[in-house]
Amino acid sequence: MYSSYDVIIVGAGHAGCEAAHAAATMGSRVLMITMNLQTIAQMSCNPAMGGVAKGQIVREVDALGGMSGIISDKSMIQFRMLNRSKGPAMWSPRCQSDRNMFAWEWRKALEENRRVDFWQDTVSEVIVLDGRVSGVKTSLGVEFTAKAVVLTNGTFLNGKMFIGEKVFGGGRTAERSATGLTEQLVSLGFESGRMKTGTPPRVDGRSLNYGIMEEQLGDENPGKFSYTNTSPLKTQRSCWITYTNQDVHDKLKTGFEKSPMFTGRIKGLGPRYCPSIEDKINRFADKDRHQIFVEPEGWDTVEVYVNGFSTSLPETVQYDALRKIPGFENVRMFRPGYAVEYDFFPPTQLKPTLETQLVKNLFFAGQINGTTGYEEAACQGLMAGINAHRNVHEEAEFTIKRSEGYIGVLIDDLITKGTEEPYRMFTSRAEYRTLLRQDNADLRLTEKGYAIGLASQERYDNMVQKREGVTKLTEAIRTAKVKPEDVNHWLESKGSSPLREKNSLYTLLKRPEIEQKDVDELLAMFPELPQEGTEIVEQTVIEIKYEDYLNREKQNAEKLDKWENLSINPTFDYDQLKALSFEGKEKLKKLRPSTIGQASRISGVSPSDVSILLVYMGR
Amino acid sequence: MYSSYDVIIVGAGHAGCEAAHAAATMGSRVLMITMNLQTIAQMSCNPAMGGVAKGQIVREVDALGGMSGIISDKSMIQFRMLNRSKGPAMWSPRCQSDRNMFAWEWRKALEENRRVDFWQDTVSEVIVLDGRVSGVKTSLGVEFTAKAVVLTNGTFLNGKMFIGEKVFGGGRTAERSATGLTEQLVSLGFESGRMKTGTPPRVDGRSLNYGIMEEQLGDENPGKFSYTNTSPLKTQRSCWITYTNQDVHDKLKTGFEKSPMFTGRIKGLGPRYCPSIEDKINRFADKDRHQIFVEPEGWDTVEVYVNGFSTSLPETVQYDALRKIPGFENVRMFRPGYAVEYDFFPPTQLKPTLETQLVKNLFFAGQINGTTGYEEAACQGLMAGINAHRNVHEEAEFTIKRSEGYIGVLIDDLITKGTEEPYRMFTSRAEYRTLLRQDNADLRLTEKGYAIGLASQERYDNMVQKREGVTKLTEAIRTAKVKPEDVNHWLESKGSSPLREKNSLYTLLKRPEIEQKDVDELLAMFPELPQEGTEIVEQTVIEIKYEDYLNREKQNAEKLDKWENLSINPTFDYDQLKALSFEGKEKLKKLRPSTIGQASRISGVSPSDVSILLVYMGR
Repeated sequence: MYSSYDVIIVGAGHAGCEAAHAAATMGSRVLMITMNLQTIAQMSCNPAMGGVAKGQIVREVDALGGMSGIISDKSMIQFRMLNRSKGPAMWSPRCQSDRNMFAWEWRKALEENRRVDFWQDTVSEVIVLDGRVSGVKTSLGVEFTAKAVVLTNGTFLNGKMFIGEKVFGGGRTAERSATGLTEQLVSLGFESGRMKTGTPPRVDGRSLNYGIMEEQLGDENPGKFSYTNTSPLKTQRSCWITYTNQDVHDKLKTGFEKSPMFTGRIKGLGPRYCPSIEDKINRFADKDRHQIFVEPEGWDTVEVYVNGFSTSLPETVQYDALRKIPGFENVRMFRPGYAVEYDFFPPTQLKPTLETQLVKNLFFAGQINGTTGYEEAACQGLMAGINAHRNVHEEAEFTIKRSEGYIGVLIDDLITKGTEEPYRMFTSRAEYRTLLRQDNADLRLTEKGYAIGLASQERYDNMVQKREGVTKLTEAIRTAKVKPEDVNHWLESKGSSPLREKNSLYTLLKRPEIEQKDVDELLAMFPELPQEGTEIVEQTVIEIKYEDYLNREKQNAEKLDKWENLSINPTFDYDQLKALSFEGKEKLKKLRPSTIGQASRISGVSPSDVSILLVYMGR
Repeated sequence: MYSSYDVIIVGAGHAGCEAAHAAATMGSRVLMITMNLQTIAQMSCNPAMGGVAKGQIVREVDALGGMSGIISDKSMIQFRMLNRSKGPAMWSPRCQSDRNMFAWEWRKALEENRRVDFWQDTVSEVIVLDGRVSGVKTSLGVEFTAKAVVLTNGTFLNGKMFIGEKVFGGGRTAERSATGLTEQLVSLGFESGRMKTGTPPRVDGRSLNYGIMEEQLGDENPGKFSYTNTSPLKTQRSCWITYTNQDVHDKLKTGFEKSPMFTGRIKGLGPRYCPSIEDKINRFADKDRHQIFVEPEGWDTVEVYVNGFSTSLPETVQYDALRKIPGFENVRMFRPGYAVEYDFFPPTQLKPTLETQLVKNLFFAGQINGTTGYEEAACQGLMAGINAHRNVHEEAEFTIKRSEGYIGVLIDDLITKGTEEPYRMFTSRAEYRTLLRQDNADLRLTEKGYAIGLASQERYDNMVQKREGVTKLTEAIRTAKVKPEDVNHWLESKGSSPLREKNSLYTLLKRPEIEQKDVDELLAMFPELPQEGTEIVEQTVIEIKYEDYLNREKQNAEKLDKWENLSINPTFDYDQLKALSFEGKEKLKKLRPSTIGQASRISGVSPSDVSILLVYMGR
């Protein structure tokens, strides 16, 4: 009935949108199928993008040519660089978003892509011929053919929502669930499991007393996510901070006997690091308060998101407990929080490209892989979209190493270790997080994005310009000489010891007591330096101040990368290596790592197993 | 658990939004309950407001102080005054709307009203004590108490959607239906029935060939709906016109054997005057083509609404038939059309205030009463919201007579005659449509809206200013003398016979060959006239040109109104009037008309029955 596509994307959340945009931008004919065209790129949970480690991911997606950064920039209402007081590896961009604008900007971006078509329907089956995907069937009974399919079903697969003792079928508030697809995938041989996530109540901002909360302003000079020329914010909306207390906890406890989690009615595991408020009270019984972020949902709405208060307790308990929070005494709820349980597919069934091992050209991205978070979903969608396109066009796999980006860490973790609970990114998951900073994602990744036809010429040129600017400025700083009489007064004011003799500006910059924020003042004393923008200066200073450390990290990363570059044939017959440990062999046969590096990280694969593999491969 | 309200509004479509806004603006504490706060004021069908008779209703809603006109003005992308070439009674404002902006503007307007609270949930039961409503229960199990409840459930009550042979439970595409409420109302003694409506496919504007369609531009000087100071459009988007043909019809016919309508699977009656394309082919077999309006869905989306092609045939048939329409050869569908069947409650169970006869302070408005159309719904919501507020505050009923507005015609028709099929407004339904024009809705109704505290002071002042301006200009035109030498040349150019002697401008204006559009030129020859704006000039000229006709209509209307002013006690015992015809008595007992006028319009109540009532009442 309909035309045939290169790639079909099932789902239109963060993963689906990035996948569709990437594959289409690179040249594939793409069909996006979503249950509701009115809810493309709905932020189901909090109205925010970025945060610690997550902000770095958005920057990486942007550097590769994805859209999450641009969309976030266009729809943000507040921007903050988190952890400014810590080392630059920890700096993490985060924004509050206008929920409606975010969705609409994504929709516009996809509509503007002439290779993206849309179809509103629910996919109930993937069509597989000879171990290769060839299309999908929908609940309307329509069949679409395609060379590759990316599933990004979010929380919709057999989704079940819980509020106290009530259970509703559904993937998201007021939306249906998707049935049939899990069962079909299981019949094809896939393993599936259940996971759980949740969301807090939404309340009426007009009913809150902000006067007794702490105001959280946006940054004075707000940054942004995209390396392209999006505009930073001129005005911002504030968030507010308040805290729970013993009274709140006592009220919440009255609902524990009806909690779907505590009574075992929810089987799936929830995100440990984004727990519900009842979980927090339970697990951290000694804490007498928990922080609540009061976040506006957009520029011009009174709806407010109660971040930190995710719950599936009965709605009367939610209400009574909310009213004990300072500033919430007269709160009016718009809707209660709820938990949602859904099917996922353990991601150890995937290749590093996010293609399934079982079915050629079938890709999974987002929550279907057991992750949580918009950013985690977006980057998987991007990688799946890229690789779907490349498979269809018989081009090589596109992957990112652990040493190149959080995206690499995330995917390697998923496919190598799997996950028992919703997987969320942290800086601690990266071995070399000082290399994977938010300021250098473009320098790390734009060239790769450009090489595959995703990052635009403009992006590439920007990156090259930045790289050259950094080189030029670094060189100039290296050669600039400083006379004691010129800087000693200033050095004193910073509590730094005075110079005795002429020294290089380069050495001076490395002094730890000269902080990033002081650098502009110092550099201003050297008008002979090339005049560069903030990004270049920041980048240069980081590279100089942390030079030794970064060099050490790079060396370590290179060592690691050696193993990453040793590929293993996916059909390799491990049984022929009699010396492998039993557990190691079983795991290797199941996970089919694509490199020695990946093999070495599989739990149960011992160092001696790795040596055996290396010996066999002639190393 | 939650605070008690004056008025609870169930549903957030056109009816629910107007009801909430009206009751809250007048001073009631209002709770709006909707299944999905993200879909407040969704335009479920075409992205347009107004049209013949419907545009007049929007103007009337606006004149009374409702919001539909203002929201339409803020979100329109094209404006046309339909029927400009006919008499002014037929002039009908119509706009294309940006679907998303329309919804968002409504949401903002409601959020700005500090007396409107929101709750996301599905109402499953109304609580009735001693024949009086006292609140609602929801599917979450929450109870809210209120002094009055307005039900505006649209197509959601036991909603069932049909596409070909497929049936889905649901009230609207991708949304759930609402169950339980109908059954409860029936158990309370209400009669219910089934109705049906439908919507066309949405398609991708990028796939259409506009080059071979007729462009339909907006008006050169676009008007607007609201009498307030909203801004008219500066730029507009075009619509396009194309036609079906025999090939299209032949393709459609291939699906007739699977049509849910023709095979009897849909029991409810559909809107006769907004038929599906398969209905049109069937009923007008001699017509070899039907007009299709190709309407953009907003300022910046490629989604397009195929107005005139409503269908519930199988989606493959829809697709194949669409492709035979000139300009649609390469069409890509976004989603198929569908039919939806839902419960309604025959509106003869209502009082003129839209309160139910059975349960005190329970009101019904919109499609639940068997109507179709956004405008029909909006005006019912407005009237129900007003009367809910007034009941709660023990104020008198607020009604509009048939001679005062289309709103009066609509409600009187509904409660007196009921409806077998979705009721839509037409100018022909009004006895005195020349009085009920779009240009004078403010003069007809703003005083009434102001008196009850709904229309603002500003609206009232605007109206008074307009009324005084018209009086002044009319007086000036009445006294202005015209010399032959000044106008004969101009008269000739208009094909109007020259003056022999001095005459009054007043008489000259009445000449039928001097059209509305020529008037400005003529008046410009008389600089001594007061300089008034377009609205006042237009109004004055209409009143002068049609003076005799309008006066005759007013006299007729006054006669009619005499009967309208003769109230009948709602508990009147008709059995005591032995002389009444059997059928007349039964109908009167069932419908309980509130006036002799209403009684006289009930089918089955004979003129002699009316005489008997009049005699009894001492007339």
